[in-house]
Amino acid sequence: MSIKIGILGYGNLAKGVESAIQQNEDTELLAVFTRRNPKDLKIRDPKASVHHVDEIEAWKDKIDVLVICGGSATDLPVQTPKYASMFNVIDSFDTHANIPQHFTNVDAAAREAGKVGVISVGWDPGMFSLLRMISDAVLPEGKHYTFWGRGVSQGHSDAIRRIPGVKDARQYTIPVESSVEKVRAGETPDFTIRQQHTRECFVVAEEGADLAAIEEQIKTMPNYFADYDTTVHFISEEELAANHSGLPHGGFVIRSGVTGWEKQNKHIIEYKLKLDSNPEFTGSVLVAYARAAYRLNQEGQSGCKTIFDIAPRYLSAKSDEDLRHTLL
Amino acid sequence: MSIKIGILGYGNLAKGVESAIQQNEDTELLAVFTRRNPKDLKIRDPKASVHHVDEIEAWKDKIDVLVICGGSATDLPVQTPKYASMFNVIDSFDTHANIPQHFTNVDAAAREAGKVGVISVGWDPGMFSLLRMISDAVLPEGKHYTFWGRGVSQGHSDAIRRIPGVKDARQYTIPVESSVEKVRAGETPDFTIRQQHTRECFVVAEEGADLAAIEEQIKTMPNYFADYDTTVHFISEEELAANHSGLPHGGFVIRSGVTGWEKQNKHIIEYKLKLDSNPEFTGSVLVAYARAAYRLNQEGQSGCKTIFDIAPRYLSAKSDEDLRHTLL
Repeated sequence: MSIKIGILGYGNLAKGVESAIQQNEDTELLAVFTRRNPKDLKIRDPKASVHHVDEIEAWKDKIDVLVICGGSATDLPVQTPKYASMFNVIDSFDTHANIPQHFTNVDAAAREAGKVGVISVGWDPGMFSLLRMISDAVLPEGKHYTFWGRGVSQGHSDAIRRIPGVKDARQYTIPVESSVEKVRAGETPDFTIRQQHTRECFVVAEEGADLAAIEEQIKTMPNYFADYDTTVHFISEEELAANHSGLPHGGFVIRSGVTGWEKQNKHIIEYKLKLDSNPEFTGSVLVAYARAAYRLNQEGQSGCKTIFDIAPRYLSAKSDEDLRHTLL
Repeated sequence: MSIKIGILGYGNLAKGVESAIQQNEDTELLAVFTRRNPKDLKIRDPKASVHHVDEIEAWKDKIDVLVICGGSATDLPVQTPKYASMFNVIDSFDTHANIPQHFTNVDAAAREAGKVGVISVGWDPGMFSLLRMISDAVLPEGKHYTFWGRGVSQGHSDAIRRIPGVKDARQYTIPVESSVEKVRAGETPDFTIRQQHTRECFVVAEEGADLAAIEEQIKTMPNYFADYDTTVHFISEEELAANHSGLPHGGFVIRSGVTGWEKQNKHIIEYKLKLDSNPEFTGSVLVAYARAAYRLNQEGQSGCKTIFDIAPRYLSAKSDEDLRHTLL
């Protein structure tokens, strides 16, 4: 019997979840819920149906796990606790500073309903968090570094698009190679923001726009760009479509630590992701943890969980015997 | 209150565990148990005592976790089940083919005694297994590769030492760089043994020994060398001591997988270790999982566990709140 999954929302991430479900024999997409008119939404999976989100409660006993694909700024803080009172839920909430509050809210709702809510799943937070945490436990005397990229930051691309005179834009986050090499060599420097990443922007301007003014506005934008070395390229709409239509991303977590009675030995742990599609990889991680949410709930657990609380075996469709035999 | 640890055996791995315990504020070494005369054993930790293994049962109620540092060939298959009937135990059993049998034996003993036994902990099996398993769950359509090295293989070094005319030897396992690059580039070839690793040997010969004969014996040794491209260097005892006295190791696990409705997107997950000291890193992993064994048992669990069965949070001395706040 397969795990029946519902998806809330139908943006890039939801499409990644939809295709990941197809790749897992024990999962099945039952329904997509949308705030739009369901008639206007065309999904890929011919076996699943589309419904307005207002009808979601009728699916309480049909759906094993609801994957919530909203945004972290305003959607998830409301949606995840709300739907945790009806379903096992999972989200990719990524506003690091607000995770403790989000955890508390989801935990209360999920406990009350006897459901499991898994939050902040993806690759960062997600796989990167897992690697930071385990490496910190294994090498307690050390330091960790997270580098992102080379990849498209959707938040930064959106920020550029909001500048008057900009028609479209794509922003790449790029790790500073010389800093990465220092860390890989076992040095443990304190980096400034500028020393860790650079930002490269590809911008399509409106006809007649003041390019120098746009470039200046980008480079001085607080939080997003001001603290970084930023390069701006103006390109045509065609070039943007031809060379920058994908959503690749990736990066690496490096833990550098010491062991030995005199702390004389160095160890470097590095976890690296190179992703052709950020939303599809994130969707794949979500489906593995959706499986875990369902199983944990089947065992009688409830409340909010993060990636730290879930034993790896729950992620896999394979039996314990098979895992020990083939992957241990 | 700290977690009280006992160590059985006192070779390189046990010394790695001893120094890792020093690096973790919530763990404390209580005693080392040896098959030798305890008077002849000098350990580093001034607060711990040394005892003959025959006295171990008297420590049943004093030790929270016993870290068993025997060899996988003959020690651990006997020791781990035996001591799981008295203590929470942990080992680094690494004979992959016999893990299912070892699991069954330890599980029966630990369940009967109400203890937890964690087996096959270290980096491979161990951290590498964890990465293989999680990556397999996240990218179910793909292929994984494990490369070891550059590092000293103690088993292969021992095999060379057993050849007549050999005084001492050190063998390095080295990944074939061109094969690694293929995998990193997203290709998923089927490699022969020879295509994945080469072997480099540094040999100190007895005076007057037949060097050509030794080299021939090494290169044609079944299982150990015959299937590999092997290089043999004869060096002096001084050179061996000066340049090859450490036990560095490492390697990487790479998962190459595809996602997307047409499986059009590639993803590469790579986990890499670069270790100055193989036994000290393995010892550090053992201590983190010893903490987990103790905590799981405190929660009322018993039986055999592997790294797949243990939620990451159990490995860390930090609180759940702290983990979510700082590492998620």
